[in-house]
Amino acid sequence: MALCTVTILPDDRVLEVESGSLLLQACFSQGVAIDSPCGGRGTCKKCRVIVDGKEDLACKVIVDRDMSVEIPEDSRLQKQQVLLDKPGEGLRALKWELKALNPIAQRITLRLDMPTLDENTNDLDRVRIALRKHFGADSLISLNALQRLPEVMREQNGVITATMVFNGRFWKMIEIVSGEAQRPLCGLAIDIGTTTVAISLVNLETGVELAKRGRYNLQSVFGSDVISRMIYAEEKGDDGLQQLHKASIDTINELIEGLLEATELQRTDIKAAVVAGNTVMTHFFMGVSPKYLRLEPYIPAAIEFPSAQARRLNLGIHPDAFVMTMPNVASYVGGDITAGVLATGLHEIQGDIALFLDIGTNGELVLGNAEWMMTCACSAGPAFEGSGIACGMRAMDGAINAVEIDPDTWEPRLSTIAQQPPAGICGSGLIDVLAKMRAAGVIDRSGLFNRKAETSRLRFLDGEAFYILAYAGEYGNDKEIFLSEDDAKNILRAKGAVFAGIKVMLDNAGLDFSAIDRVIIAGGFGSFINVSDAIEIGLLPDIDEAKFSYVGNRSLHGALELLLDRAKIHSCRDIANGMTYLELSNGNHFMEEFVSAMFIPHTDLSLFPNRYR
Amino acid sequence: MALCTVTILPDDRVLEVESGSLLLQACFSQGVAIDSPCGGRGTCKKCRVIVDGKEDLACKVIVDRDMSVEIPEDSRLQKQQVLLDKPGEGLRALKWELKALNPIAQRITLRLDMPTLDENTNDLDRVRIALRKHFGADSLISLNALQRLPEVMREQNGVITATMVFNGRFWKMIEIVSGEAQRPLCGLAIDIGTTTVAISLVNLETGVELAKRGRYNLQSVFGSDVISRMIYAEEKGDDGLQQLHKASIDTINELIEGLLEATELQRTDIKAAVVAGNTVMTHFFMGVSPKYLRLEPYIPAAIEFPSAQARRLNLGIHPDAFVMTMPNVASYVGGDITAGVLATGLHEIQGDIALFLDIGTNGELVLGNAEWMMTCACSAGPAFEGSGIACGMRAMDGAINAVEIDPDTWEPRLSTIAQQPPAGICGSGLIDVLAKMRAAGVIDRSGLFNRKAETSRLRFLDGEAFYILAYAGEYGNDKEIFLSEDDAKNILRAKGAVFAGIKVMLDNAGLDFSAIDRVIIAGGFGSFINVSDAIEIGLLPDIDEAKFSYVGNRSLHGALELLLDRAKIHSCRDIANGMTYLELSNGNHFMEEFVSAMFIPHTDLSLFPNRYR
Repeated sequence: MALCTVTILPDDRVLEVESGSLLLQACFSQGVAIDSPCGGRGTCKKCRVIVDGKEDLACKVIVDRDMSVEIPEDSRLQKQQVLLDKPGEGLRALKWELKALNPIAQRITLRLDMPTLDENTNDLDRVRIALRKHFGADSLISLNALQRLPEVMREQNGVITATMVFNGRFWKMIEIVSGEAQRPLCGLAIDIGTTTVAISLVNLETGVELAKRGRYNLQSVFGSDVISRMIYAEEKGDDGLQQLHKASIDTINELIEGLLEATELQRTDIKAAVVAGNTVMTHFFMGVSPKYLRLEPYIPAAIEFPSAQARRLNLGIHPDAFVMTMPNVASYVGGDITAGVLATGLHEIQGDIALFLDIGTNGELVLGNAEWMMTCACSAGPAFEGSGIACGMRAMDGAINAVEIDPDTWEPRLSTIAQQPPAGICGSGLIDVLAKMRAAGVIDRSGLFNRKAETSRLRFLDGEAFYILAYAGEYGNDKEIFLSEDDAKNILRAKGAVFAGIKVMLDNAGLDFSAIDRVIIAGGFGSFINVSDAIEIGLLPDIDEAKFSYVGNRSLHGALELLLDRAKIHSCRDIANGMTYLELSNGNHFMEEFVSAMFIPHTDLSLFPNRYR
Repeated sequence: MALCTVTILPDDRVLEVESGSLLLQACFSQGVAIDSPCGGRGTCKKCRVIVDGKEDLACKVIVDRDMSVEIPEDSRLQKQQVLLDKPGEGLRALKWELKALNPIAQRITLRLDMPTLDENTNDLDRVRIALRKHFGADSLISLNALQRLPEVMREQNGVITATMVFNGRFWKMIEIVSGEAQRPLCGLAIDIGTTTVAISLVNLETGVELAKRGRYNLQSVFGSDVISRMIYAEEKGDDGLQQLHKASIDTINELIEGLLEATELQRTDIKAAVVAGNTVMTHFFMGVSPKYLRLEPYIPAAIEFPSAQARRLNLGIHPDAFVMTMPNVASYVGGDITAGVLATGLHEIQGDIALFLDIGTNGELVLGNAEWMMTCACSAGPAFEGSGIACGMRAMDGAINAVEIDPDTWEPRLSTIAQQPPAGICGSGLIDVLAKMRAAGVIDRSGLFNRKAETSRLRFLDGEAFYILAYAGEYGNDKEIFLSEDDAKNILRAKGAVFAGIKVMLDNAGLDFSAIDRVIIAGGFGSFINVSDAIEIGLLPDIDEAKFSYVGNRSLHGALELLLDRAKIHSCRDIANGMTYLELSNGNHFMEEFVSAMFIPHTDLSLFPNRYR
């Protein structure tokens, strides 16, 4: 097998690659992740690289010789940062108090009598008897802990501290040290989004969140949405599944590395992990094929996965830690929504009716309160995460997140994250741009561009129309930033799907928009979403803006909540089992509602009484 | 680090060895096992090798240059064979019948309805619900089985066969195939003796024993008895423990290889294993230090070890198989005795009083019946296994197992195993030789040689006396075979310890020898033991010879019994917990009895009324 040398520029990193490999795959397998929303099908053109000075797509280049490959910043996945709350910010809202801590892993210091010739109980039974007093039932013991027991027990004259972990069914002793505990006892919350993975490290004995990290899911190289990743896995067979599983684990392990470095902790300090992800992400994380979830009758391998040992998943925490996944609700409403509901407390709301929206790569909606809950998933598509939009980008430095447009000159005034030169448009920016373009008359209610206007901000080419937000160089930006007519259609499709989902749920409950007392928005917008704009374009219903709140990443917080209170295992099951799932593709009037909602704000203006009376 | 080349002769195998290594260790670590009963302390002189033509001991030679090392047949461990019953012979006595099979692993074929749009239960719950009908409770599921579930379920339209294993507490599904089962479902019984390891492969669905194998314990390189191995492990710290653990696993894995080759089965066909070993062997097998078992107050790490996954022990069977160890009784009465009692049914004997003797490297005794049981361990030493005897050997081809001595001329007539030229004397041979030497007057009752006799069969040298059973070349044998006065003393010590143990137990029960209704002999003698001789020298009590039976390796059969009937888990616990353990070194009159028993047959001839009236 011949090897070729691929020199990655500008890093000057040298990869040895088997001749005949695809450049995209070869880079990925050696940790150089190139953006490829379409999963290497050659349709998205995002994996642009410069091979020996000539532009090409990484998914098209076969490595058949030594080559140099420049990967422009835009095409790189791992450079992209994810915005997160500051550690503790989200948790503060949860109001953990020490007395209420009931964590999923705990430590018990035992003061054992040392054996004598007359009282010669063996070491294991001595510990078992002491533990039974705490737990009322027999605990399991890991082989590692057992192997250390004889020495540890005698080091400090019978004083030992056992680390016990709970998996919802039984306790297991996974570590044992002599004397009192020396090291922090930590748990890890993991939110696996299709696009973004976020993790949070929490001290289970104090409830203090120590650090958090986010990054883009390395699975993105296999496609930007769950469907294209499932297709990739299916086409490549077991090997494809393994690649997606490994990408998921690698993403998390790299984040863990960062956490450990920042906190100076050891991986073995992390004794438990809770994972919240959508149903497909959870399958890939567990190494289980989600194939049949995509094929009629759309059956997941599992709704509630059994806990797994970290060792078996190669997760970089204590090898004997239990890894629990949040129970899923249905094929396209996953454990991330269960976690989100848990964290927002929607399932405990008395009287009021609440609407929970988690709009990320997909849109999942929950309507209800403590009495009843209903949920659905609408394939909003990743437009709000910047995907499928020519100048779309995620909410990071330089993203345009708001705009003003002069109604006379159509000249825009931009606002960007961290006041950096504009690099693209993020989700909240897209909503704002669309609302402002409509208000100024640049587009009509169906998203069509006004072709009569005369301004250099508008350009028409081969029947396609473009509104230029920033000329190349205008603000120190390299390239032109625009919104095309196609982009506008994509956004309308995405917002239409969400709005239609809300409408269908309300109809099923026999309610209208006025029945909604609270709207809780979570997900990938970042905290920049302008509710007024979102109502203006018909993404959100036209109700009192005071009823809306933005809560950030609630999936991660739901996972943290379970780590800190193991009784929530039952709440999670109740939430997942208690929700009525509406299948929008089947037997509902979603399609009609969707078509009607693909206008600004809607074909039926009476639904927006405050805006269009 | 410089490497030296060690060429092993006559095999011509070349080892690369770090300069400065000890030859004994270097050979062992690369699978060339040299006999070293003293554990490399230089005291036993058994590890004789020829280094570049000069004789030396492998435990003395530092590899500091390229060298050739001839390892004589005598010094090799792995060439030595172990005699076993033929497969099925022992089991036939257990009378397994298909209807009574209640094995520790079983397979269930489920005929699941395939999901539809209306009945869309997920795969895992579909299987769980079906399994709950069989087991009445929830089962666990291995990650591997879960990962295969979606495909397997759909291959033959919902017909699947699940392999379930039981660990005494819960059932776990460890494998799943589509349709009916294709491969045999096997279990492995393992008897880890200090000297010999024997394994037996059984089909758990038919109860048929498929094959068995035995070999010498590779741990022997660290010492011939448990004490020297414990000292070795202790002196080398964690690394020493690892070496002993690994030697134990390697021994078993090599035996498994042989079984698989002979039966054309795959390692994953073996879904369960039960291990019977003495307390120290069980600790080493589990990788747990037995250190504190040797130091006052003599506490084992565990009496009943939790089951372990084969994967975690590197045992070469199905990685998710549970490995159970027979519960131990006390520090020096182990799971092998629990298994032996189970297999002989001593714990179920009504009325009669039985004595169970397991004489291997150590001697363990059990006295009692269904009402009560008492046990003790007497350090008989490995004399009956040929160790510590100049011309001693294990019971294999060429071993002298019986002898006649002409009372006038003192000329011997030898009987050897498989009628091969004599190579040494095995345990049963030693008993016979001693009895016949005493009968002919070659030795007196205390084992002293008659120094007045004039025959070339007797030789005196530096105060030591030798009785020559075979001159060099007399029967085609290379070297002279003799029994020395020292050897006689060693045998008297060994037999004295056993007899004293029996006497102390009877005294504690307030019984005398006539109370014994049955004597069940198990262990390393092979089936050659001559009961009359053994009574003659005072190893066995002088009661009706019809009361004695030899049962072979009962530990292995006990392990097989548990594999085939999981309800026996409770019997094993009851046996282990129900036996009263007599500590002979502490607070009993063992020492006086031992001193009195070091004569032929005893100082108190009234104990042998039928022989010496």
